[in-house]
Amino acid sequence: MTPPLHPDVAILAPLLGTWAGDGRGQYPTIESFGYHEEVTFGHVGKPFLAYGQRTKAADDGRPLHAETAYLRVPSAGRIELVLAHPTGIAEVSAGTVAVEDGVVLIELATSTVARTATAKEVTAVERSVRVDGDELTYEIRMAAVGQPLQHHLAATLRRTTP
Amino acid sequence: MTPPLHPDVAILAPLLGTWAGDGRGQYPTIESFGYHEEVTFGHVGKPFLAYGQRTKAADDGRPLHAETAYLRVPSAGRIELVLAHPTGIAEVSAGTVAVEDGVVLIELATSTVARTATAKEVTAVERSVRVDGDELTYEIRMAAVGQPLQHHLAATLRRTTP
Repeated sequence: MTPPLHPDVAILAPLLGTWAGDGRGQYPTIESFGYHEEVTFGHVGKPFLAYGQRTKAADDGRPLHAETAYLRVPSAGRIELVLAHPTGIAEVSAGTVAVEDGVVLIELATSTVARTATAKEVTAVERSVRVDGDELTYEIRMAAVGQPLQHHLAATLRRTTP
Repeated sequence: MTPPLHPDVAILAPLLGTWAGDGRGQYPTIESFGYHEEVTFGHVGKPFLAYGQRTKAADDGRPLHAETAYLRVPSAGRIELVLAHPTGIAEVSAGTVAVEDGVVLIELATSTVARTATAKEVTAVERSVRVDGDELTYEIRMAAVGQPLQHHLAATLRRTTP
């Protein structure tokens, strides 16, 4: 049985559940690509949400990316993200969370990108997330491998289970 | 259907599955405590393992800690860990993995501990993991809140599902 959501993260309640949909990635150093994505946000009654994500290539279904993270709300209107990539990269981010006309708007920017010695040189990541009822859209900007911060990923997901 | 394990992480095959058991935590700044833990290591056919963990208090079963991470083996005998804590902390670690008489031995130390502005001041973490058949034991050392690197956690888990 899932306990009640911790009041500190009540503003994030509309994120809870499983989401699926399609996205598109691009970057100057790679060919652009389509992907199918599944996202989950869960909780255990403590003051954070657990986040997990997996993508598959739109063309042949091979697994592409995955990431796993926690979100917390250290004070009203503020949000923090700690995210691990399987590529040897950790994002530690902070930003804002707001609700406008029932739509949750999250803006995050890395304060630190930490990397293992063998990881690609990612230096900054920004994430914008918008949850409007059963639709979640996001956009991710990235500075990496000598390129300036710029659009990298965008997707539109639908809630599949609450 | 799970695809075959990626050959880069073949040495980590004995970690795959779900594990459960009991541990004990201590640190100069807190009261020592017992905990029950569940750990999973999974994969999707790509060159990394996904790791997740949850603990509950031994006394009343309330949820305590959780963490989520990826492991990869960038070259023979080397291992990297990128781990997210819900407390606003990311561990980026590197170390060694070896098999001796069928026992997997992993030694990891943080190259970076990245923290959100509101996280506790953890400055270094070392992890030793030993997998001998269906028994997994680990020990974690931590430097935090002005204390030098020292023993913090130890647990003994048994494999519950492959």
